[in-house]
Amino acid sequence: VKVTGVDSSGSRFTPLVVVELASDTKEEAIGWLLSRIRDQQRHGGTALRVLLLSSNIYNPNMFLVGASQQRLLSGAEDVGLFKEFSDGSMRGFTCANKHNFKDFKGKVQDFLSMAECQYIVKHELDTLRARDETHVPGYAQVKLYPGKSIIRRLQSKGILIQMFPLHEKEELKRLSFSWYKKVKLSLQPLDDIRHYYGEGQAFYFGFLEYFTFALVPMALIGVPYYLFDWEGYDKYVIFAAFNLVWCTVILELWKRCSASLAYHWGTLSRKKAFEEPRPGFHGVLGFNPVTGREEPLYPNAKRQLRIYLVSVPFVLLCLYLSLYVMMIYFQMEGWALTVHDEEPTFWTGILLFIPSIIYAVVIEIMNLIYRYAAEFLTEWENHRLESSYQNHLVLKVLVFNFFNCFASLFYIAFVMQDMVLLRQSLATLLITSQILNQFMEAFLPYWLQRRRNKKMIHKVRKRKTLEDKELPLAEQVRLEADMSTYLGTFDDYLELFLLFGYVSLFSCVYPLAAVLVVLNNITEVYSDAFKMCRVFKRPFSDPAANIGVWQLAFEAMSVIAVVTNFALIGMSPEVKAYFPDSETQLILWTVAIEHALLAFKFLLAFLIPDVPKHIQIKLARLEFESLEALKKKVE
Amino acid sequence: VKVTGVDSSGSRFTPLVVVELASDTKEEAIGWLLSRIRDQQRHGGTALRVLLLSSNIYNPNMFLVGASQQRLLSGAEDVGLFKEFSDGSMRGFTCANKHNFKDFKGKVQDFLSMAECQYIVKHELDTLRARDETHVPGYAQVKLYPGKSIIRRLQSKGILIQMFPLHEKEELKRLSFSWYKKVKLSLQPLDDIRHYYGEGQAFYFGFLEYFTFALVPMALIGVPYYLFDWEGYDKYVIFAAFNLVWCTVILELWKRCSASLAYHWGTLSRKKAFEEPRPGFHGVLGFNPVTGREEPLYPNAKRQLRIYLVSVPFVLLCLYLSLYVMMIYFQMEGWALTVHDEEPTFWTGILLFIPSIIYAVVIEIMNLIYRYAAEFLTEWENHRLESSYQNHLVLKVLVFNFFNCFASLFYIAFVMQDMVLLRQSLATLLITSQILNQFMEAFLPYWLQRRRNKKMIHKVRKRKTLEDKELPLAEQVRLEADMSTYLGTFDDYLELFLLFGYVSLFSCVYPLAAVLVVLNNITEVYSDAFKMCRVFKRPFSDPAANIGVWQLAFEAMSVIAVVTNFALIGMSPEVKAYFPDSETQLILWTVAIEHALLAFKFLLAFLIPDVPKHIQIKLARLEFESLEALKKKVE
Repeated sequence: VKVTGVDSSGSRFTPLVVVELASDTKEEAIGWLLSRIRDQQRHGGTALRVLLLSSNIYNPNMFLVGASQQRLLSGAEDVGLFKEFSDGSMRGFTCANKHNFKDFKGKVQDFLSMAECQYIVKHELDTLRARDETHVPGYAQVKLYPGKSIIRRLQSKGILIQMFPLHEKEELKRLSFSWYKKVKLSLQPLDDIRHYYGEGQAFYFGFLEYFTFALVPMALIGVPYYLFDWEGYDKYVIFAAFNLVWCTVILELWKRCSASLAYHWGTLSRKKAFEEPRPGFHGVLGFNPVTGREEPLYPNAKRQLRIYLVSVPFVLLCLYLSLYVMMIYFQMEGWALTVHDEEPTFWTGILLFIPSIIYAVVIEIMNLIYRYAAEFLTEWENHRLESSYQNHLVLKVLVFNFFNCFASLFYIAFVMQDMVLLRQSLATLLITSQILNQFMEAFLPYWLQRRRNKKMIHKVRKRKTLEDKELPLAEQVRLEADMSTYLGTFDDYLELFLLFGYVSLFSCVYPLAAVLVVLNNITEVYSDAFKMCRVFKRPFSDPAANIGVWQLAFEAMSVIAVVTNFALIGMSPEVKAYFPDSETQLILWTVAIEHALLAFKFLLAFLIPDVPKHIQIKLARLEFESLEALKKKVE
Repeated sequence: VKVTGVDSSGSRFTPLVVVELASDTKEEAIGWLLSRIRDQQRHGGTALRVLLLSSNIYNPNMFLVGASQQRLLSGAEDVGLFKEFSDGSMRGFTCANKHNFKDFKGKVQDFLSMAECQYIVKHELDTLRARDETHVPGYAQVKLYPGKSIIRRLQSKGILIQMFPLHEKEELKRLSFSWYKKVKLSLQPLDDIRHYYGEGQAFYFGFLEYFTFALVPMALIGVPYYLFDWEGYDKYVIFAAFNLVWCTVILELWKRCSASLAYHWGTLSRKKAFEEPRPGFHGVLGFNPVTGREEPLYPNAKRQLRIYLVSVPFVLLCLYLSLYVMMIYFQMEGWALTVHDEEPTFWTGILLFIPSIIYAVVIEIMNLIYRYAAEFLTEWENHRLESSYQNHLVLKVLVFNFFNCFASLFYIAFVMQDMVLLRQSLATLLITSQILNQFMEAFLPYWLQRRRNKKMIHKVRKRKTLEDKELPLAEQVRLEADMSTYLGTFDDYLELFLLFGYVSLFSCVYPLAAVLVVLNNITEVYSDAFKMCRVFKRPFSDPAANIGVWQLAFEAMSVIAVVTNFALIGMSPEVKAYFPDSETQLILWTVAIEHALLAFKFLLAFLIPDVPKHIQIKLARLEFESLEALKKKVE
């Protein structure tokens, strides 16, 4: 049941993407933009179809963009989509060869998912380039340079408010039912998620699921510790040793899993197109040495100066502040303890937990504020590529969040060496941050969303009698335009990263942590699924081949975990009992074994192939065939 | 002044490669092989030219192989040679496009170096595949399978004795003059070396030169330590700290150097052809899952069993033996010391050095024997690919050599904690092994070679009156066929690796080590150049893009060096003086700083780009252009 529109030329098309321009945009700019979008490709246009969404209450400048079937296919070739070939391998789609692809049966709808179509439309719009216009008609101050993306310029100047893909109501209903609505003992429908949201999203949910399963053994081992009150350090040693092996192995196995998924989804060997500068990038106009096109250039030395003279000191300052807050927490903790010790009652018993809870809340708030500062700084560093912007942002945020969340635990563990306080602190931090996160992430936006929706539907209903038959589509667009924008998987991964830290770093003193994280992850699947389906605008799919920089972040954490766990083991009285005479001997042995284990860990990571054998063979076969084909092609 | 031959069809050609068959090879096999080589490519032949070397004294079955100019060009395309394009970038050569390459002026000799031509001929001979023959004519037991390399089969069955490229006398004279004959203050002629010997050799000499220069700062710092007899531990601490930074930085910079060289030589972005099984590989006949061709298959599980159940225990046994020998050395050392202490004379003073020297010689002998055992074992593991065979061999040899050479030093440094003995032992080991190596590597083969040559020239002179005008070529082939075969850069790199170990691991207690290694390296350049030009047969060039697995080996060594140096620093009395009360504190601090430094080292390796910016841009431009071309090609 697809909604279809009729474009000015009279031909019907499926609306894929909504483009919203500012309501006060000048007529001549609109006319120019629409004609540029509708133009044939040989005239420098995108040959897409555009339709004004009629009868709009708030903003008269909302447009629906779609494309003809043929255009979508040629777009699929442009973006380098990989599809299953008739022989079962994954190959780059080409129009000339279309009939040899497995699922191509003439109809484009069955061959390309709507998410793919929307991605294609977005790509084509993004690459709509200025020709000889010097500025946007009607806006003399919005300059255009030949070869620059028009959409990105309009977006950065605020003329284009937003551009988002439409949800498919039926599909979404089906997906949300199989995903989170039915009580189930089955896995998430990853292929359906990928079909609807694209690979980036699907990878996040795949990783979340994998991570949850990987935690189950840890959780199972943790339960008896809690039930039987196993307190002995010898038991903790076993747990820490298990922890060590576990966190290395699961990350290596994930790489293989991830490669399988990426191959199956056709993104593993997909070649990246040349990366264009990100919208916010600015600089003096010059020629790009790679493409030879005119674009802003910004000297690398200047950026390095900004990074090392401003960003790095700023991050260090924030770390210092975080340390300061930590010290206040320890003072509060000490004060609570004195109060409790003086006159222990039920209330002072509760009071003991108060500083930890307050500290946990403060940590979350600091993380949030820092997040904005980091975004601002990274924006100001003026990175040319989106990927380099993301890497710098992730690095900044990770370092601070790691420090902010774990510094107090490290301090308690290694400076105060108070295992009871460590356990209590870990439990409070973990539980508080989980509750806060779930609340902030899903329920708050949902509640806001509902309030807005109710108002909107109310208004729409009042006008309903005036509306024509096109109402469902118009209403849908309006509702979706008002939904919050999903800002990517960054925060979701960050949350998993911190949870991974809680489990792998210190869980040997609080084995129940793994159980808590498993429970959290299960609710996380539901709340994330819910927010994707109901709270946010549909995001554009992004063809990812893995979880990107997060793999590295998790691996770094697992190295830190090895060191931390070994230090905890070395500090245990049981291990100390083996070296009654000399503490030096104890430490030297601990360090030696730790080094050997680290070496073993790196060796293991090196020996386990990142891509499973059967996929390696398939990739090699493709490579071989293309080489052979090249040889035959010699004229 | 090129020697030329005349082939049976009457056309002249430059002989490039000599193929020597066993003197008792049956006529029908020879006839069949020659016709297969001469056949047109469309009939499954190689279309190369072959000529019997007439008037041969020892072996009547020596053949000269060459090719027409056109054939060489199409071969250059087959092997994927990269050449400089008219716009200055490096591109894969294609015949269709030949006139757009910078140095192509019609004559093939000026465009392709002789080494390249020889590599092409070797590649074509290697890929001469059996068709429907079931066995080599005249040899019913030498079976052939469709699609298998004929030359490799003949080689593994002993019918083909050897195949080697001819030297160019004039070129060689010129090269050897500019390389090692003139007393010079200039760099090695790397481009000429690459031109004559190919990229693999040139990379070795490039690395040797780079390594020598990289050592100069270390050596300069080391000299005053020796001159002024700086003994203080505080000075060693400075040296160790410098060592740390140095060994990380030089390896990272080498990667960039190496990328520049590889780009310049056209091997950086060269695509590897599908790797065929190595000659010795055997197994049950089946179908390769990648190519679909029939070839021997050998189950991976079986190979893993051989590796883990036989090779690994064998290596461990050898390590144990090496440990045992080390213990005998320490007993001898103790005995010599007692003798010296009882009645110190000049002779007992010398006696003190005897155990170290004997031990050094024994180490070299053990290394040599182990080398053969490792080759035998790795052969027996039956690896399908030459690269995987090489990796396993390198790993085996490295582990043993590292242990064998450095175990005693580690023992002295960390168990006996005797810095004076460490210095003495290090010096003796280093100097003895250098002298032995130079002797074994260059002078011994040269001396053997000269003896053989004299005999040969003597015999040839006696017959000279009988010979025709073709004598110079025939004589050259005969002389070269008798030269030793160069077995690749393995041993040369291994030697550098061990020297790097001596310098980076312990040189802070013996700063003169760097000076010795620099001196050794300078003579090494000369002796290696000499042996390449005068002692060995010309090797086939091998198109390498870097120093391969050795980069990894050197990096692993530099990590071990960080740990070792830090342990040495931690043990120094000066550092101990900072923590007068508690040794535990000292060790904990040392370990903490060491971990931080290791983390910093990895971060540094991560931050320094492996490929210099200007080459990244050139590569990106090529990539971009090929993507653009692909887009335009859409029909």
